[in-house]
Amino acid sequence: MSNHDRDPILLTPGPLTTSLATKAAMLRDWGSWDASFNGVTAQVRAKLAAIIHSQDSHVCVPMQGSGTFSVEAAVNTLVPRDGHLLVLINGAYGKRLARLTAMMGRRSTTFETADDVPTTAADVDGLLAKDPSITHVGLIHCETSTGIENPLREIAEVVAGHGKSLIVDAMSSFGALPIDARTTPFDALVAASGKCVEGPPGMGVVFVRKSTLERCGGNSTSLALDLHDQWTYMEKTTQWRFTPPTHIVVALNAALDQHASEGGQPARLARYRANFEMLMSGLRELGLRPFLPPAIQAPIIVTVHAPADPKYLFAEFYDRVRAKGFVLYPGKLTQVETFRVGCIGAIGPGEMRHAVNAMRDALAEMGVRDVTPAGAARAAA
Amino acid sequence: MSNHDRDPILLTPGPLTTSLATKAAMLRDWGSWDASFNGVTAQVRAKLAAIIHSQDSHVCVPMQGSGTFSVEAAVNTLVPRDGHLLVLINGAYGKRLARLTAMMGRRSTTFETADDVPTTAADVDGLLAKDPSITHVGLIHCETSTGIENPLREIAEVVAGHGKSLIVDAMSSFGALPIDARTTPFDALVAASGKCVEGPPGMGVVFVRKSTLERCGGNSTSLALDLHDQWTYMEKTTQWRFTPPTHIVVALNAALDQHASEGGQPARLARYRANFEMLMSGLRELGLRPFLPPAIQAPIIVTVHAPADPKYLFAEFYDRVRAKGFVLYPGKLTQVETFRVGCIGAIGPGEMRHAVNAMRDALAEMGVRDVTPAGAARAAA
Repeated sequence: MSNHDRDPILLTPGPLTTSLATKAAMLRDWGSWDASFNGVTAQVRAKLAAIIHSQDSHVCVPMQGSGTFSVEAAVNTLVPRDGHLLVLINGAYGKRLARLTAMMGRRSTTFETADDVPTTAADVDGLLAKDPSITHVGLIHCETSTGIENPLREIAEVVAGHGKSLIVDAMSSFGALPIDARTTPFDALVAASGKCVEGPPGMGVVFVRKSTLERCGGNSTSLALDLHDQWTYMEKTTQWRFTPPTHIVVALNAALDQHASEGGQPARLARYRANFEMLMSGLRELGLRPFLPPAIQAPIIVTVHAPADPKYLFAEFYDRVRAKGFVLYPGKLTQVETFRVGCIGAIGPGEMRHAVNAMRDALAEMGVRDVTPAGAARAAA
Repeated sequence: MSNHDRDPILLTPGPLTTSLATKAAMLRDWGSWDASFNGVTAQVRAKLAAIIHSQDSHVCVPMQGSGTFSVEAAVNTLVPRDGHLLVLINGAYGKRLARLTAMMGRRSTTFETADDVPTTAADVDGLLAKDPSITHVGLIHCETSTGIENPLREIAEVVAGHGKSLIVDAMSSFGALPIDARTTPFDALVAASGKCVEGPPGMGVVFVRKSTLERCGGNSTSLALDLHDQWTYMEKTTQWRFTPPTHIVVALNAALDQHASEGGQPARLARYRANFEMLMSGLRELGLRPFLPPAIQAPIIVTVHAPADPKYLFAEFYDRVRAKGFVLYPGKLTQVETFRVGCIGAIGPGEMRHAVNAMRDALAEMGVRDVTPAGAARAAA
């Protein structure tokens, strides 16, 4: 109703705002057996692989479903029945990785740091030295629950040094943060259509080291989530094993063309960083404080302390900012009250400045004056 | 290129041709946490349930991924670790059901009839009487690999009479063939967005008897495919657990509105039957013979014997018919050479007549004269 029924801008970490060209690609129907569609699938796989320079070492296996489906597929396919996965946790997605591993009956050990403490390479070195039964390590590159960036390359080198296998959830970093398969050793890296490559949500993708995947037949206890079966069938037939989300695949293909023509990952990161800087300077103006220190904050999603003022209620703040045309994201922390602002999607710093102004107006309308962190106030009380 | 770059009509059993209104619904981005999107999810669930009158007895649990993901989710969630599933097979989808059950480590027994022989209620009665350890029965309502319709209602009554639990794969029948949860007892029934409700592919749905699902916590060995977890989270929050395919959900909502305004399931069946009759009369004209006898043939997809003429090659036939604007489907039988023609999607008998004419022209161009079944010729040889 507001903004003359224009779509609000999604400041959320996927689904996010996609370009009209990406959405318009969904205005056609494609046969899943047809060579033209299978050609699109091949293009998508090649374009995705090029982003992380993995084409010579890894195969790109697309998978239906949300990103979590691909994470579960990676664990179920790569970790043998008698394997042992060390899960590195500093947020909700690390916890989810541990949970799905336990549910499928694989042995797992967790190492948890606080939400604002990255896992270090030294941590991993110590853990692997202490327990030689660990066969695989699971790492969340960028924890969307806070926006924290874990040191992927350093951890990857330590894991490789111990001769172990690394599985990386790169859901909210792939396409924007630099990842290079030629210099960062990993056996599997998981991404999704609806994040920094700015496609619609509905499919994931796992880059698996080819020499590893070749040995993974028979590991999976799930047919739908068996990456080895998905890969071998696709290699043999050029087709997906089961009905693909055709409209999502062609939209992702269009989004990847835009990713390349923008200038690839470095340009995507530069735009997101400009969005991020605009947001951070706006938060400073408003007196709102980010949850994470700048050194460990990826320019993907920012967690912000909620104002201590009793007049602040997230639901009302959300509704007011939304009525002005911007969709925020709730916090995901249990100890501290926060909200989140995504810096990703088909938007630029201009939109982010509008969003900051909308937040200012919303807080003023609510009569919020004390914007010091609610968590800090409570901790002091 | 042909047809001035117009989209070909998909005579395939999903993905199929969707209406422009359905595709146009994907031209907007939606936040997955936003109340407006969660309202759409609630509408979709209610509209789907109304089609089979299941709203008083069953809950409607949407699931990301293709239909197979939902079938696997139904088995993994409903069949306890010490359960025993009897799988009724007369085609590729029955075989897939048995395979995914075995992979997840649940005990299963298969009962297989030929591709052109429906499972009968008497078969099931005998099987259940003979092996009381069976706890669940898995049935494919309409086998897309041939188009055969199995007698759902009669089998459901027998399974209920034995006090066992029925899981129905109704992928290619839901929305077109009559199914009434008030009179046909089943514990789970699986459908998908991209079949007879004419949405885009990308999500499935499982209707689960509420009193059954309430007891299914802890059964699943898969987090992503745990229907109990998906349901309880959605009931509590109105949201999907993991990122939903937002564009697919809103397009399905639009498709369901068109399903209702057309006149619901009876009208959808009437249109498909008109498509089917047009196809059958056309095949008779061309001298091509359907694989199944009419009594067990659902008006969803028709398997046709390939012509015996050595000049007939499916790949060339497919390409020629496609160049004229129609996408056929290859056969899925191992013993007999066939091709398939779907009668479903946003098309009417007019389009089907054009398709028949295109097949006639293609065969003439190829110089195919002997259209007697290749399978019959081989069997005689």
